Amino acid sequence: MDPPRVITTLDDLRAAVGPLRRAGWRVGVVPTMGALHEGHLSLVHASRAECDFTVAWIFVNPSQFGPGEDYARYPRDLQADLDKLAACGVELVFAPAEGEVYGPEHDTWVEPGAVAGPLEGEHRPGHFRGVATIVLKLFNMIAPDAAYFGQKDYQQALVIRRMTADLDLPIEIRVCPIVRESDGLAMSSRNAYLSPAARRRATVLWKSLCLAKELVAGGERGAETIARRMREVILSAEDARIDYVALVDPETLQQVERVDRPTLAALAVRIENTRLIDNCILTVE
Amino acid sequence: MDPPRVITTLDDLRAAVGPLRRAGWRVGVVPTMGALHEGHLSLVHASRAECDFTVAWIFVNPSQFGPGEDYARYPRDLQADLDKLAACGVELVFAPAEGEVYGPEHDTWVEPGAVAGPLEGEHRPGHFRGVATIVLKLFNMIAPDAAYFGQKDYQQALVIRRMTADLDLPIEIRVCPIVRESDGLAMSSRNAYLSPAARRRATVLWKSLCLAKELVAGGERGAETIARRMREVILSAEDARIDYVALVDPETLQQVERVDRPTLAALAVRIENTRLIDNCILTVE
Repeated sequence: MDPPRVITTLDDLRAAVGPLRRAGWRVGVVPTMGALHEGHLSLVHASRAECDFTVAWIFVNPSQFGPGEDYARYPRDLQADLDKLAACGVELVFAPAEGEVYGPEHDTWVEPGAVAGPLEGEHRPGHFRGVATIVLKLFNMIAPDAAYFGQKDYQQALVIRRMTADLDLPIEIRVCPIVRESDGLAMSSRNAYLSPAARRRATVLWKSLCLAKELVAGGERGAETIARRMREVILSAEDARIDYVALVDPETLQQVERVDRPTLAALAVRIENTRLIDNCILTVE
Repeated sequence: MDPPRVITTLDDLRAAVGPLRRAGWRVGVVPTMGALHEGHLSLVHASRAECDFTVAWIFVNPSQFGPGEDYARYPRDLQADLDKLAACGVELVFAPAEGEVYGPEHDTWVEPGAVAGPLEGEHRPGHFRGVATIVLKLFNMIAPDAAYFGQKDYQQALVIRRMTADLDLPIEIRVCPIVRESDGLAMSSRNAYLSPAARRRATVLWKSLCLAKELVAGGERGAETIARRMREVILSAEDARIDYVALVDPETLQQVERVDRPTLAALAVRIENTRLIDNCILTVE
């Protein structure tokens, strides 16, 4: 495949996408922070299948990182990303510099509501404000018909769905399933931080989610009982530290006491100082 | 002139405006809360002069009113508004019900930054959050090429300009001069609240701005001296209460000490419990 065209300025982006939109093409966008893995590429495949033209956006957004988080060391490898996107047939990559995205006087923010409060919102204050703002900016830059997000960032997808509805954006938000390594670890750019030994220990996240599914399939309905058993699995890994293990309503993200309808099991765990998240929906027969 | 088409739903709005946009028409929007006066109509004329198609939006936005403000009694007279818009040649009016604009789960807000802090921001907490959110929603509903605002709401125009730039909206923000009654009172839907006697007293706002201009023309540069003289003029009116009289930088709205470059004189005054605002730019020769 030909390498995708790489655009770095908003003017060039609008010049490239505007005529396609006016011609009635369906435009899909895949927002990423780069360091692409199969999870991202599944979003590209979905967009390519459903849209006439796909824009991949690569931008490590500073405003969604808190103080002390990994903004500076977040993995960046544009050439490797472009090779992967070329292999998927992506025509256009938007990879702006920070100064192209945030002007020096930038001072307007999108404040998401209650759905941004618990889970990641509690542990990463301001994170979803940064996410919502950058995604809205991207939407306004491209005016896509559809945008593709991964279910690994489940709460992020909810926040963006809510924002898109509340702000009357005519954009379809598509959420694609989590892509996992063969041992169940959810694909994440941050997995690259893990030492080989920690990488092996990191399977406790998925194992704890599998245990939750088994417990529910076996008739257990008590959310706290399930969460306690999940925590035991996670803490069996040396140096694992739990940010949260939560069983919540899949729409409101409010804690549930009983798993008697579809429930989101969500967790954030630090292994060897690398913060990993994962989730699954627990269904009841 | 034919009466304008009145649309009340977002679906109908998009169906009406989408084809025009795809055909390359320049679409202008005039956001109003109805109770139209010559100030609003000057915005319509500007849009009609510069755009191929003008949408007037009439919506009394609850989220920009604080508790105890005049949302419930704000003047509403759709038929009179339509007659005025018909006389101006407006083709389309978007006049949605509140439920069409804010869904029951609405929970995403635009937080404007520092420019929303002083003046109106200080006296009407949350006002500009409501303004920025509703204007962004409107922009997303219509995707206009240009939007027209009045300089009477000077700070509002600054907030919207900042938002439009920060959120990468491809929309030109046009700000049109204040339209005044023959005695200088800035036109406002709220002038209708005034009793005949209070209406006469309300001229102190414009008189105080004229005094400021005269003082600057006469060589006075001390901002506090000018503001003090303005306050004296205003307080000469029986029952006038001052929210603020401020001399500020026209871009940042931060107070200035000396008027040695263009300076905004802005004021908010209650006459007979009706809150009126006005402003002008003081220029230095």
